[in-house]
Amino acid sequence: MISTSWTKKRDEKKRRINAVKHLVENIFIKRENIVETLQVLIQPGDRVVLEGNNQKQASFLAEALLQLDPAKVNKLHMVMSSISLPEHLDIFEKGIAEKVDFAYAGPQSLRIAQMLEDGILKIGEIHTYLELYGRLFIDLIPNVVLIAADKADRLGNLYTGPNTEETPTIAEAAAFKDGIVIVQVNEIVDELPRVDIPSSWVDFIVEADQPYQLEALFTRDPQNITELHILIAMLTIRGVYEKHHVKSLNHGVGFNTAAIELLLPTYAQSLGLKGKIATNWALNPHPTLIPAIESGWVDTLYAFGGEVGMEQYVAARPDIFFTGRDGSLRSNRALAQVAGQYAIDMFIGSTLQIDKNGNSSTVVSGRLAGFGGAPNMGHDPRGRRHSSKAWLDMITSKDPLAHGRKLVVQTVETFQNGNTPVFVETLDAVEVAKQSNLATAPVMIYGDDVTHVVTEEGVAYIYKAEGQEERRQALAAIAGVTSVGRTADPKTTQALRERGVVAYPEDIGVHRTEAKRSLLAAKNIKDLVEWSGGLYNPPAKFKNW
Amino acid sequence: MISTSWTKKRDEKKRRINAVKHLVENIFIKRENIVETLQVLIQPGDRVVLEGNNQKQASFLAEALLQLDPAKVNKLHMVMSSISLPEHLDIFEKGIAEKVDFAYAGPQSLRIAQMLEDGILKIGEIHTYLELYGRLFIDLIPNVVLIAADKADRLGNLYTGPNTEETPTIAEAAAFKDGIVIVQVNEIVDELPRVDIPSSWVDFIVEADQPYQLEALFTRDPQNITELHILIAMLTIRGVYEKHHVKSLNHGVGFNTAAIELLLPTYAQSLGLKGKIATNWALNPHPTLIPAIESGWVDTLYAFGGEVGMEQYVAARPDIFFTGRDGSLRSNRALAQVAGQYAIDMFIGSTLQIDKNGNSSTVVSGRLAGFGGAPNMGHDPRGRRHSSKAWLDMITSKDPLAHGRKLVVQTVETFQNGNTPVFVETLDAVEVAKQSNLATAPVMIYGDDVTHVVTEEGVAYIYKAEGQEERRQALAAIAGVTSVGRTADPKTTQALRERGVVAYPEDIGVHRTEAKRSLLAAKNIKDLVEWSGGLYNPPAKFKNW
Repeated sequence: MISTSWTKKRDEKKRRINAVKHLVENIFIKRENIVETLQVLIQPGDRVVLEGNNQKQASFLAEALLQLDPAKVNKLHMVMSSISLPEHLDIFEKGIAEKVDFAYAGPQSLRIAQMLEDGILKIGEIHTYLELYGRLFIDLIPNVVLIAADKADRLGNLYTGPNTEETPTIAEAAAFKDGIVIVQVNEIVDELPRVDIPSSWVDFIVEADQPYQLEALFTRDPQNITELHILIAMLTIRGVYEKHHVKSLNHGVGFNTAAIELLLPTYAQSLGLKGKIATNWALNPHPTLIPAIESGWVDTLYAFGGEVGMEQYVAARPDIFFTGRDGSLRSNRALAQVAGQYAIDMFIGSTLQIDKNGNSSTVVSGRLAGFGGAPNMGHDPRGRRHSSKAWLDMITSKDPLAHGRKLVVQTVETFQNGNTPVFVETLDAVEVAKQSNLATAPVMIYGDDVTHVVTEEGVAYIYKAEGQEERRQALAAIAGVTSVGRTADPKTTQALRERGVVAYPEDIGVHRTEAKRSLLAAKNIKDLVEWSGGLYNPPAKFKNW
Repeated sequence: MISTSWTKKRDEKKRRINAVKHLVENIFIKRENIVETLQVLIQPGDRVVLEGNNQKQASFLAEALLQLDPAKVNKLHMVMSSISLPEHLDIFEKGIAEKVDFAYAGPQSLRIAQMLEDGILKIGEIHTYLELYGRLFIDLIPNVVLIAADKADRLGNLYTGPNTEETPTIAEAAAFKDGIVIVQVNEIVDELPRVDIPSSWVDFIVEADQPYQLEALFTRDPQNITELHILIAMLTIRGVYEKHHVKSLNHGVGFNTAAIELLLPTYAQSLGLKGKIATNWALNPHPTLIPAIESGWVDTLYAFGGEVGMEQYVAARPDIFFTGRDGSLRSNRALAQVAGQYAIDMFIGSTLQIDKNGNSSTVVSGRLAGFGGAPNMGHDPRGRRHSSKAWLDMITSKDPLAHGRKLVVQTVETFQNGNTPVFVETLDAVEVAKQSNLATAPVMIYGDDVTHVVTEEGVAYIYKAEGQEERRQALAAIAGVTSVGRTADPKTTQALRERGVVAYPEDIGVHRTEAKRSLLAAKNIKDLVEWSGGLYNPPAKFKNW
């Protein structure tokens, strides 16, 4: 046996905590001491989680981190769900951090690609949220985590309210492995509305000078929904939801899915589908779902995070949403991703490019956007063993061991903005992988995980296609006048329609002429506010009345 | 808009809580009132989660449930990770419950199959743990949950200690959807060692008459490890761990993997592999891993649950294990399953049957055993986007969109107990599915998810096999004298060995004659206790000295 210490990490944590005794009051860091305190609690080479996803940001702590002296704190290995704020990259330019593992970098995707090229940062790996959370407990265990909560009490218990999101998961990875948990709160109070994270998990709290930053990421204004979106939505409702009895689902963010949400109480209602489809959701509180909820379409909705402006509405609808004893939403990004991966019948989303084999990506030249949560939900979870009507409907073989599949649906217009084709020969992702020296090409959803693709031309039931060539033909049949679409052979298309591998609008009773904005249950944000009885309070940028 | 109440579930919860006011003191149920109280808090037709997995059982509440008057409480829809205790099925015979959704029924698998045949219970679906947790937030949201913790304080905060397991996940599903959370605790105390679940999530607490039941499921006595296990372990270490640089992993429970654990500080050490393989684990605290830990092989281990007798050892090794501020283990079954699915390079386990295509199952005739956690880890998680050396090593194509795979390894002897073949033409699971009227056959791991199969004959690298027929030949080549093995064609086998699709011991430098028990770092439980410096305290049934 080796003679060694088994408490190195715990001893080091103790040492650091003792070294800041003069800067803190019990567990509370004085705001003016935040930089000096972090400079002791964080040491060179540490693995640091800085909270920030596509919605909620530990923005005060991000700013404080940037003020550290790179002579004292450097070579940090950052772990971030999302690289969203300029500060998230400034720390690399300043020499405080050197490596990053992340899941999403939408707003900073251009800059991160450039910095990578310039050698200013090193990328570990690009993840989906859930796999990044998993690694926090395996090989990316943090030394320090910097997280955000709404309120703390005097004992250090935390209230995260509607935006609980991934905060407890990050805290857990550090709190139970002798990492240091540092929390910015909007407010310190005597009594919390409810406890989301117990004080046993928390080391230090600082009251920020302003509330943590929050983005209304899932709000889509119905006034921007076009008749093309509506046609695709109609095709999807009839050709996918109705056909396969899809009851539990997630909607990606975008106008295509917003259109579906707004057609449920109108078009889908007229088809007699209420209660038969789209009853149980893993979804952020989309404002465009309000009319469906108010019309009794939705049984339950479990949320990854909150949505700015939806707080009061959610609190008033506890039969639908998950709420705490205080009445407000409780979200949980890790568990919602688990539910979205394993417990739902269908994931449906949009994308920027689809290749001839059905592989898709939101990565385009010069940008390193990452994945967020989509690939985690946009695949067939092969560890699933329970069945549902929709899942069983995907079986195409008579093998006694045949099993169902999750429906993974992509809805796209054949062209973006009228002239950039969505269907392409080869994804830009292939070139981006070379440029950025990535181990694999950043594919959002692999073709063999996709079951359906819907465009304004029709539906490709690619789960039914026999072999790669037939899948290509099915995709070509709905790819319009893109170069991929032009490879379609009319005879083959006709045969595929007869076998139900492709459906055009007329094959499934959808009338193109009916695809009008008048079908939308709400035509603008104001309508949504009205549907909500005034409970939905949209952010200022969405108010034009 | 429909005029309706949006607080039906909350109102009903309030009504029930008010109706037990005379039976409780604040949130504490008097033990003698437990049956009467449950009879009010649980109503006919409720969906009820009764905590019980393969380790920890809410045994007091299970007994109380059985004492309910079926005239008052009936038609319950039970949701249980594991059907382990006789009471779990007695409630169906007594007419209190009628339907069950579950993940595992090992100890009760024979009885449940019989009861199903007799029409005494209805089965919803059979799950893996993680998908069942997911459904608690989508379409199996509970009305009442009955869970177990070590201690509660006077405010209702809970300490779950080393066996945190799935308790917080079950509590969360009810606490935030106006379900009722009822907890049995071993003890009510003034101050908790740490808080695992805040009182905001808890409705009622009852002090049980004895500690909740706990099973030492992951303890394997090294004295039962045979030279065949050792040979297979040697083949696996060289042919899989070493070859692919497997650093992060999960071991299924069994003697095959116990043998590997006990060969790390001896055989693998002699190969110079320390630090190069098996450093980061998602694993319950296996006692057979003690010698590897003491020899400095293991960097970190994140646990699904605790293990009886390992408490003191774990508490003394915080650099390895996840422990709380009180010093004891914190486990979390949901997060460990996420990590085990997404964050590790390899899952390795054993099975009872493998068919000629590599599909495997632990289901044998007349038993409905369920899945537990294995399929969740024993597949390639297609939502994974980060790479590792081992993961990339699975790429066999030159496609620019090619991606890696998780290693899914099955280690089996060709015959169980000397005469029952493990390799079979058709899994018993096919027949069980018909008998029990299941929607799909209960396959544990699908052949196309398996990358390697190891027997005493050699290693089949089936991820390299081109097509179904070659996969069959590769499996046949290592299936010994089973009927499947007898289909092997010597010429084909030779070609497969040359291409590295099959490896026999001599191909990878393993000498059958070296497979001796003297290679085991510990030969019995007593040796493990010695390795631990007396910190490991095995349950009485494992002590024979």
